Formats: sequence, C-alpha cells, structure tokens
Amino acid sequence: MDKIAIIGLGLIGGSIGMALKQANPQGLQVVGYDAEPEVGRKAVKRGAVDKAPWRLIEVVEGAGMVIIATPVLSIRESMENIAEMLSPGCVVTDTGSTKEAILGWAEKYLPKEVSFVGGHPMAGKELSGIDNADPKLFQGARYVVIPGKGAGESAVKAVLDVVALLGARPYFMHAQEHDSYVAAVSHLPILLSAALVSATAKSPAWRDMSRLAATGFRDVSRLAGGDPVMSLDICVTNREGICHWIGEAIKELEAYREMVAASGQQEGAERLGGALGKAWEARETWLTRYESKLDDDDRQTTTALPSAGSTMADLFFGSRLRERYTKIFTEQERTEKERRPRPKRQP
Amino acid sequence: MDKIAIIGLGLIGGSIGMALKQANPQGLQVVGYDAEPEVGRKAVKRGAVDKAPWRLIEVVEGAGMVIIATPVLSIRESMENIAEMLSPGCVVTDTGSTKEAILGWAEKYLPKEVSFVGGHPMAGKELSGIDNADPKLFQGARYVVIPGKGAGESAVKAVLDVVALLGARPYFMHAQEHDSYVAAVSHLPILLSAALVSATAKSPAWRDMSRLAATGFRDVSRLAGGDPVMSLDICVTNREGICHWIGEAIKELEAYREMVAASGQQEGAERLGGALGKAWEARETWLTRYESKLDDDDRQTTTALPSAGSTMADLFFGSRLRERYTKIFTEQERTEKERRPRPKRQP
Repeated sequence: MDKIAIIGLGLIGGSIGMALKQANPQGLQVVGYDAEPEVGRKAVKRGAVDKAPWRLIEVVEGAGMVIIATPVLSIRESMENIAEMLSPGCVVTDTGSTKEAILGWAEKYLPKEVSFVGGHPMAGKELSGIDNADPKLFQGARYVVIPGKGAGESAVKAVLDVVALLGARPYFMHAQEHDSYVAAVSHLPILLSAALVSATAKSPAWRDMSRLAATGFRDVSRLAGGDPVMSLDICVTNREGICHWIGEAIKELEAYREMVAASGQQEGAERLGGALGKAWEARETWLTRYESKLDDDDRQTTTALPSAGSTMADLFFGSRLRERYTKIFTEQERTEKERRPRPKRQP
Repeated sequence: MDKIAIIGLGLIGGSIGMALKQANPQGLQVVGYDAEPEVGRKAVKRGAVDKAPWRLIEVVEGAGMVIIATPVLSIRESMENIAEMLSPGCVVTDTGSTKEAILGWAEKYLPKEVSFVGGHPMAGKELSGIDNADPKLFQGARYVVIPGKGAGESAVKAVLDVVALLGARPYFMHAQEHDSYVAAVSHLPILLSAALVSATAKSPAWRDMSRLAATGFRDVSRLAGGDPVMSLDICVTNREGICHWIGEAIKELEAYREMVAASGQQEGAERLGGALGKAWEARETWLTRYESKLDDDDRQTTTALPSAGSTMADLFFGSRLRERYTKIFTEQERTEKERRPRPKRQP
C-alpha cells in the first residue's frame, strides 16, 4: 500500500496518523482531511499526516485504505462523499463507537468494488483534538475489528496490519454484540456522568455547592466534559442498548437508595457495606486486568464475584468489619437509650 | 503550641503531618497514632510524624491540638477513647466528610474543657494510604471549618493557623449546609460510581463486556474503587442528604433515557444535544473555577446557565449544530423513503 487517507484529524485520527508515520512502513504516504482547515494544518505540523489538502478528492484518490475517524453521524456523510472517489480494491475502515449503524451505512453507500472493515480502538483521553494526539495512544489497547459483509481476507489483513502498527490488540466481534457491550461500559458512563452534572447544576444551591466539588466530582463528571457532539452521535446510533443500561443503572441506584436509608441500623449498614465491597472488588479485579493488559485466555485474575446471598463483610473484610459494625451499633443503641438533654457548654 | 497529635495516618492524616513538619513552625512536635502499627512506622519513615507510639495516651497527652483523620464512624470511637486524656484548653479537630453527626459526637463525648472545631479539607487522590501522602495535597484546596458550640475564638484561630500551614483556603459553613452540599457533589458521585460497577459487573456478559471497558469506565468507576469503609461511614452519617440526591440523579437518568429513546428523530436529537451541551457547559464552567482556584467573590466565570426553554443548539453550538442536525435527519428521511432491498455483495 502506497497511500493511506485519514478523514477527521482529531485525537483519534491524529494519533493514528502519528503512529503510522513514525512506524513509516516502506515509504507509506499518509494524507489527511479535516472539515476545519486549521486542524489539517496543525496535523501536518504535528507530523500526523504528510499533507492535508482541502479538497477531499485529493485526499482519497488512489488511497489503498481510507480511515474515517469522525464523530459517528459524520461517518455516514463521509461515506457518501467519498463513494465515487474510491479506487477499486480500496479498504475503508472507521473508528466509530457504535458499529451496527456504521456497517449498515457502509453496505448502503460504499460501492461494491471496495471493502469495509469496521474498527473501534478502545482508547481515549481526557483532552480531545489534534493538539492532544499521541502516537502511543493505542499501545496495548484493544482494537475491535468487524469485517463488513463483502470484506475479503486481504482487506481484513490490511486493517490488522494497521492495528499492529498502532501497537493495539485486535479483537473480533459481531457488531450487535459490540454495541450492546459498549452501551454498558462506554456509553452508560457518559450518561451517568452527564446526569451527575445535570442534577447538581440545576439546583438553586449549585453556586454555593459547586465550591465544595473536588476530585471526586471532577472524575465522575469527566465524560460530561467530553465533546457533546460525539456523545450525541453515540446515543442516536445506539439508542436501544443505552436505554436498557440506563434502566439497569436506575435499578441499582434505587437499591442503593434503599440500602443507604436503612444503614442507620446494623443489618442495613452491613448490606450496604456488602454492596460497596462487592463493587470495590469487581472494580479492582477489572482494573488489574485492564492495566496489566492481560489476554483473554488469562483467567487467573477473574475470580468469581461473591454470590448475592453472602455479604462482603464475611468474604472480604472478614471478621474485622463485622466486629466494627457490631461495636459501632451496639454503642449507638446504648447511648440512644441513655440520651438526655445536652448540658449547655461555655465558650 | 508545642505538640500536635494526629490520629489516623492514612492519606489525609499523613499528608497533614508531612505539611506541618515541613513548615515546622517554632519546633512543633508532631506525634501520630494509627490502629495499624505498621502504618505508624511508615509515617515516621516518610516524615509525616516525629514518632508514632502504640499507646494512644502517649500520643494525645499534652497536645495543644488533636487532629482526628480516621473514617467517619471511627471518629466517634476516637473521641470516646481520648476524652479522658486531653489537657484542658486542647483544641480537637477532624477531617471527616460529614459534619453534623461529628459535631454531635463532639458535644457528647468531649469534655467541656476542650474545644472542638470541625474541619473538612476538600482534597483527595485516587490512591489512599500513607504511601501516597503528599504535603502539597491541600495546596489551594478549600478547607471547610465548622466551630463546635463551645469553641472560642482562640480555638478557631488555632485551626485556621493549621489550615494556613497546609496552604489551604478556609471556608466557614454550617454543618447542615455542608452535609447537604457534599451529599450532592461528593457522596452522590460515590453512589453513581458504585452503581455503574454493580450494574455492569452483575451482567452475565460481564466477562466479555469488561474487555471493552477502557478510560471512560475507569474514570467514572474510580470512586467505586475507593475504600468501602470510608464510603460506608459517609453513607451511614449522611443518609437523608444522600437519599435525596440519589433521587435527583434517578430523575435525570429517566429524563436522559426518554431523550435517548426519542433521539432517532430530529426534535428528540436536538433536545438530547441540548441537555448534553448544557451539562458540558456547566462542567467546563465549574472546572475553570476549580482549577484556577478562583475565590468566592470572583463572579466573572459564573455565567448563568441557559434556561430550560432554550436549547444548547441555539446558545452554544449555534447554527452549525442546527444545520448538522437538519442535514442528517433530512438525509435520513430521504433515504428511508427510497429504501429498497440491499443487493448482495461479493467478497
């Protein structure tokens, strides 16, 4: 392949370009396009692309591969725009966060003579845009690969070569499976994050309250600070999965509300402690796998979660936590019994 | 003051000790206590305290100030334990995340001869424990100060001196006000984070799904990875406020679910885009204030949020986003009208 075209030179498109150019396989030419000409100029300057012509045809023409790295709904537009410009045998791929809709558009808009192989690198960053592009962004990350109906072996191989150049790990899935999974682990977090900000910022006390917001608020609200256009496109193209998972989160929050309300008594506090402990353990187990980039067949850290019937107080914190609860609540009952009007104290 | 005692030498207690010792005002002695003797030894090694005797009385006796930096429910226990050991005129303060309960315990358990001034530094870190203590943790952070009923001017002044040595900014509030605000901006995020993990990790598909979880999941679930004992204590002592805010978050999630479901049509997508855009703006406004550590009276960045009636498409993204929606949905309607069976494509 002599030429790769990248459409959309934000964080993802820019990072792909930088990684490809740094790997520089056999004098490959990387040409980019962005709707904002200023972004194209920056991409050249940052070494993400060799050039960024303002006419799309100059970017796409003669390319052996076109990588579309725009927000999801713009991928459809890009496909329509480039359809007539593609050389026969060209491989088109994308980096969109939802895949079923995109594979449908590829079938509909792209000519028979080109192959489509959907892609989704599971990597991101707090800061978006070409200024934050990083050739190491994909190192060790999973890269979902979903060949379109007409895609042959050589087209898939070409995309796998790019995935390898990025230092990512390919992961084959069905589009529907992908969309239902990312609805839970990528898209639900966006809506939880947005709901936190929406709920608090509409409070009449927000101005005062926001002064106490610190690192915890910052982290959980981070995704609400992401590009709203990208989030909107994701929601529009993965409606069913996202609605399902918002419902699951609501159920959990209702359960937590009930447990918090009952936590003034020992039994309730134990149940809440058990739930928080379970969540803690599941998160730690996941994080260990995630950070060590363990492979799928490495089962050593995927210990089963405790069953719903047993509390974490038994399983994880053991007798220490149980003792603590007992002490605290026994003391509480004792002092409540002997409660009397408090004597006034002198300053 | 010649001697300050710190009870609880985790991230917060350890960081306070390090900051005090580094400031070293007039040969002050900093003595610490932790339920885990190993933590006490580490605190000495890290320069957080001059010594960490295993007998509590050696720590507290003769101290001009006692800083209790344990999980919330352990603060009550500490107060009971030290009550008889305190010298008259001693100032007791704490760093707990809920304040009403703690002020009540202080009134109940501490002798009349000592003053209690509640404190809450609005600073934190992903990693807890003495190993992650950092003398700069409080630099520029707000530090809530709530004098107990009997606390005189000199006691408050002593705590303000410590706050100044930590490089933090004191912030006076009522305990009830504090608790209701942190329920929204500190405690609700913990429960949203835990709900994300609980909802996804109990799914039968979690094993496969978790492989796609990346930075977004990591950030929103971060607080679920915090110490469950600390979270539990917070919930137990701020039940009403937290239940209220879980309810507000559920309302928002229900609204988002409805908007996502309707986002297949232009009007619905615009509403969802408006809500996401508003959350984005509120978060950016907050983050700017937070990161620049703007003072309370600096109103320049606290622009009013757009009213519920006007969509963000008008106010923020302006005509560009409106055009994009119109284009996308007009195109969608057109292609849906001319939908026909898709031709099979050859591999």
